[in-house]
Amino acid sequence: MSDEVILLDFWVSPFATRVKIALAEKGVEYESREEDLSNKSPLLLKMNPVHKQVPVLIHNGKPVCESLIIVQYINEVWNHKSPLLPCDPHQRAQARFWADFVDKKIYSGGKLMWSSTGEAREAAKNDLIGCLKLLEGELGDKPYFGGDTFGFVDVALIPFYNFFYTTEQLGNFRTVAECPKLVAWGHRCMEKECVSKSLPDHHKLSDYFLGIKKNLEAK
Amino acid sequence: MSDEVILLDFWVSPFATRVKIALAEKGVEYESREEDLSNKSPLLLKMNPVHKQVPVLIHNGKPVCESLIIVQYINEVWNHKSPLLPCDPHQRAQARFWADFVDKKIYSGGKLMWSSTGEAREAAKNDLIGCLKLLEGELGDKPYFGGDTFGFVDVALIPFYNFFYTTEQLGNFRTVAECPKLVAWGHRCMEKECVSKSLPDHHKLSDYFLGIKKNLEAK
Repeated sequence: MSDEVILLDFWVSPFATRVKIALAEKGVEYESREEDLSNKSPLLLKMNPVHKQVPVLIHNGKPVCESLIIVQYINEVWNHKSPLLPCDPHQRAQARFWADFVDKKIYSGGKLMWSSTGEAREAAKNDLIGCLKLLEGELGDKPYFGGDTFGFVDVALIPFYNFFYTTEQLGNFRTVAECPKLVAWGHRCMEKECVSKSLPDHHKLSDYFLGIKKNLEAK
Repeated sequence: MSDEVILLDFWVSPFATRVKIALAEKGVEYESREEDLSNKSPLLLKMNPVHKQVPVLIHNGKPVCESLIIVQYINEVWNHKSPLLPCDPHQRAQARFWADFVDKKIYSGGKLMWSSTGEAREAAKNDLIGCLKLLEGELGDKPYFGGDTFGFVDVALIPFYNFFYTTEQLGNFRTVAECPKLVAWGHRCMEKECVSKSLPDHHKLSDYFLGIKKNLEAK
């Protein structure tokens, strides 16, 4: 029996994008079902009754929720190629640490910039740039966070690279001037098919977010 | 060469308690170094420069940070006994999901009760009880979250069980009336030596927190 793999998806979600990248990297065929988050499907509410959020990976009828947990699940189930986590326990712990850092600081930092104005936005911007610099320090001169190969932290962070363009417009700064190595890493990742085919176009994304913001501010 | 295992610790921290329980369950000898969080040691700042928080596990000179990541590290390194995560990838994902739920909802829910008053505290209390009921539902009739054996979610949650007494005093409710199976699970865990010897006394903990609160309110 072949595997049935369904992704409850939303094209904008960086968390859903992580799952798409991991599935593509592993060469897993799947069906994406786009959710309307203002009118969530009964399947989403059934499969993720706790958080009621995308992404949910439904593998042979069983749900897995929370993007970093899903990526680890994909790595463990489809373990025949492209390992996303190293074998060494200390290196695995380091990868988990930085992926968790992305969730705690990069996502929330961007959200804070989005929801604030004036001095508060300026402070949020400076915090976010500080966090990006920490990530750049961790990357060092390696091609990927995973070392010579694309790995767990790369999967965790690259969907947010796609938001840099929107964030730069909000905060009036250039990521490339602040973190040139991180931007070069982003370009390198984009050359991988598993990434380029999974990420939404950043102009389309920017139009979407700035459109929402404009609508909110006009009210 | 025998392993050198050092834990940068703070007796009150439920996150440090998780690490102590996992080390005890695996029978790993370690040295606990109590931190003064108002005057953090140079070692803590060196070993966890990003978050500057306890717990940090230093294993043969190499640091691992973030409690759930440390517990997974311990489980992977000392894998000869007491597996904390199941072998099946879906069950592992479920365990990671509920441990993450504890971090996202139980810790922050308790913190919100602590920092709020009046109606806001009442709302935070009701949310927290709702989350405890979800956990109780996940536990079902199993002796432990890990099934017949103590596992990852048990390690993640049991230090917060110890805070129920303080939380009850703040919120004027009885956890046992709301979630009797969860309280029975807590008693069951406390019968395990790895737990009972790692948890601070809940009266001492309660005095500590209510003392801080009184001091803050008197200012």
